[in-house]
Amino acid sequence: MKLSIDFKKNNGLVPAIVQDYKTGDIYMIGYMTEQALKKTIEIGLVYFWSRSRQKLWMKGENSGNKLKVKEIYSDCDKDSILVKVELIGNNICHTGNKTCFFNELGKEI
Amino acid sequence: MKLSIDFKKNNGLVPAIVQDYKTGDIYMIGYMTEQALKKTIEIGLVYFWSRSRQKLWMKGENSGNKLKVKEIYSDCDKDSILVKVELIGNNICHTGNKTCFFNELGKEI
Repeated sequence: MKLSIDFKKNNGLVPAIVQDYKTGDIYMIGYMTEQALKKTIEIGLVYFWSRSRQKLWMKGENSGNKLKVKEIYSDCDKDSILVKVELIGNNICHTGNKTCFFNELGKEI
Repeated sequence: MKLSIDFKKNNGLVPAIVQDYKTGDIYMIGYMTEQALKKTIEIGLVYFWSRSRQKLWMKGENSGNKLKVKEIYSDCDKDSILVKVELIGNNICHTGNKTCFFNELGKEI
């Protein structure tokens, strides 16, 4: 499959927004290399590139909370991705919250 | 207002996801500097840092399609932002599409 994504713009990485395919909730943002995106499409579960550990990883490989791919979109500039997913598990965030975006600005917890 | 966002991690920029506060639709992703985020909070309309033009800009300053801020969230790592907005205008994308994420992978138009 040819992927018309511009990986050159940001040193081989594109941001990937993860959204619940039913509720529309935003779960997290991660970064994908071309390899991560291809693996995500091939396996049907979300893979990212870890900038801190400098390696490919499957979301949920340790926690068990995986992301099953429903649809994938690119934006007009082909430099970011939106993945609509079904959450297999209970939560996304390592803090135990369902979403990583649980801090409202000015009301941080 | 003190902003507990980690701007150092990515050369002063954080990705900001723009989501419709009612429908949950993802409109676009942009990048904010600390100045852009402060201006967004102060004015109540979304400002970004343009990486290509190397300047601050208000979304809609030319097109008229502005983004009125409803809520702002940061993620667990404090290195990305989710802005829930009301679209003032008809569309977000410079292509004329309502959202920038109109290309489904494998079905590009």
